Amino acid sequence: MSNIRIGIVGYGNLGRGVELAIRQNPDTELAAVFTRRDPSSLKILTEGVGVYSVNDVADFKDKIDVLILCGGSATDLPVQTPQFAKLFNVIDSFDTHARIPEHFANVDAAAKEGGNVSVISVGWDPGMFSVQRLYGSCILPDGKDYTFWGKGVSQGHSDAIRRVEGVADGKQYTVPVQAAMDAVRNGEDPELTTRQKHTRECFVVAEEGADKAKIEETIKTMPNYFSDYDTTVNFISQEELNEKHSGIPHGGFVFRSGKTGVNGETRHIIEYSLKLGSNPEFTSSILVAYARAAVRLQKEGAAGCKTVFDIAPAYLSPKSGEELRASML
Amino acid sequence: MSNIRIGIVGYGNLGRGVELAIRQNPDTELAAVFTRRDPSSLKILTEGVGVYSVNDVADFKDKIDVLILCGGSATDLPVQTPQFAKLFNVIDSFDTHARIPEHFANVDAAAKEGGNVSVISVGWDPGMFSVQRLYGSCILPDGKDYTFWGKGVSQGHSDAIRRVEGVADGKQYTVPVQAAMDAVRNGEDPELTTRQKHTRECFVVAEEGADKAKIEETIKTMPNYFSDYDTTVNFISQEELNEKHSGIPHGGFVFRSGKTGVNGETRHIIEYSLKLGSNPEFTSSILVAYARAAVRLQKEGAAGCKTVFDIAPAYLSPKSGEELRASML
Repeated sequence: MSNIRIGIVGYGNLGRGVELAIRQNPDTELAAVFTRRDPSSLKILTEGVGVYSVNDVADFKDKIDVLILCGGSATDLPVQTPQFAKLFNVIDSFDTHARIPEHFANVDAAAKEGGNVSVISVGWDPGMFSVQRLYGSCILPDGKDYTFWGKGVSQGHSDAIRRVEGVADGKQYTVPVQAAMDAVRNGEDPELTTRQKHTRECFVVAEEGADKAKIEETIKTMPNYFSDYDTTVNFISQEELNEKHSGIPHGGFVFRSGKTGVNGETRHIIEYSLKLGSNPEFTSSILVAYARAAVRLQKEGAAGCKTVFDIAPAYLSPKSGEELRASML
Repeated sequence: MSNIRIGIVGYGNLGRGVELAIRQNPDTELAAVFTRRDPSSLKILTEGVGVYSVNDVADFKDKIDVLILCGGSATDLPVQTPQFAKLFNVIDSFDTHARIPEHFANVDAAAKEGGNVSVISVGWDPGMFSVQRLYGSCILPDGKDYTFWGKGVSQGHSDAIRRVEGVADGKQYTVPVQAAMDAVRNGEDPELTTRQKHTRECFVVAEEGADKAKIEETIKTMPNYFSDYDTTVNFISQEELNEKHSGIPHGGFVFRSGKTGVNGETRHIIEYSLKLGSNPEFTSSILVAYARAAVRLQKEGAAGCKTVFDIAPAYLSPKSGEELRASML
């Protein structure tokens, strides 16, 4: 069997993570990296692999088995995924939950036209967390779901802080509320408001002479991002921010709390949790596993758009069914 | 769409659990219960549903969409699953890990002969724990697996206690060692011996005049069951045993501890855990979800033996792909 040849589109944190993940999967290899920047300006880690303009992707039709799209969900993926799905098997990590049905329809039509397999919304949420929610709800139909995120860096909220007047730099952590999680773990099935589930912890570098009280007030009352949460704002120096807050950790918890028995007298709790040293490196490891699945599914004759719900776990593994049953069942 | 008609073979704890789980899944219905006992001696919960001899299962070929086999792995399932797989879609919870490859081959041949779908080794271990081990190993190929069981009742170990001379009754709990789990959670990747992972806690009712010291010694040194573990033996009265230890709780933990990055400098921990009020009720809820999957797969033209590895999560749900993507992804 020849290796699965993977192309990366977009070389930010996620693209670099995919490059690293490929090195951990001996049945895969990096075929090319595509960028919107000047290709000659970009230095990648893998020796002997070329960097090309994103405009030249189509030229690689016979040299790539699957493209992993590492752009953003706001503007990149809604265009790129359908565009490339016509020509290649593709994987993306589209994570705008509300727009998934529309994105799915667009990608499905394109992938079917090209006879390719696309897998969208791959990662941990959407992705592994979604899989856990689905298994949990099927196993315990009389039950409740809870998803908590963190402790981890929210890029969107960090960006929002940095747009506040007088802020030089900043980072935001989403923190799950311990008491709320404990109540779920104890089978109390609590009804939780947004405020009761998560707090927001901000580390802010103020510009010289900036009005810190006003910055804090602006952050804490910012609609959508902070006003519905208990938010803490800590002013620190740029040095401290660089030293202590330069990582991109994340994680979270998915619970299913359910009842069985003659009258629901028996309680069960399923808990799935992630503690991630690097959000993009973990996400890209998942992308590579689903890239393997997409190639195998297409070889079997499948075409169209799929999600993590539609793919049997065995497709993610380089091992045969026999090996899996003997070693892991 | 008409309901999925389920037949139960074997009406012990697991069979009763399946009957209860069917009531929680409105797209399923109980069609018949089959027993080795005298059918007239057996009273089931569901009104209007018949109890029949296990020898008459074949007569129900047109009245049942899927059979859930609730017998034991030692002697029942190795015979029953291949036998019924020729005639019906079947689900079993075969859990003798070492004999799974052989069982799979026998069931696969029978199911293909009959054009049916069989799913073997369904439950939580093998089952949901296996699925977590598979996802974890594919997502974090550079990593280690850890499975801990408990705190929960081990039927096999409880039976072993009750066979000891002078023992009137007894119950055994498998207990995971907290320090070992904490080391895994902290990313220490410990090498753990059998003794370091679990302890065994026994509650024993001694016969009148029995030699308690000898009972304790016999239990603690029993090969395979107890000699490799730190075992505690507590003598209690039959009343206390009935009052405090009549349930069948169980649970456990699956960890994947892995590294990513340029030189494995980034750590990630995936943790999946179950806290189950009733082991058989939870297991049977999983059986019913996979019964749904088996029927759908056969309708699509599939045949042969499958495991939880081979079935996409969406097949477990009564909801459509569209509904799942909109609500759970």
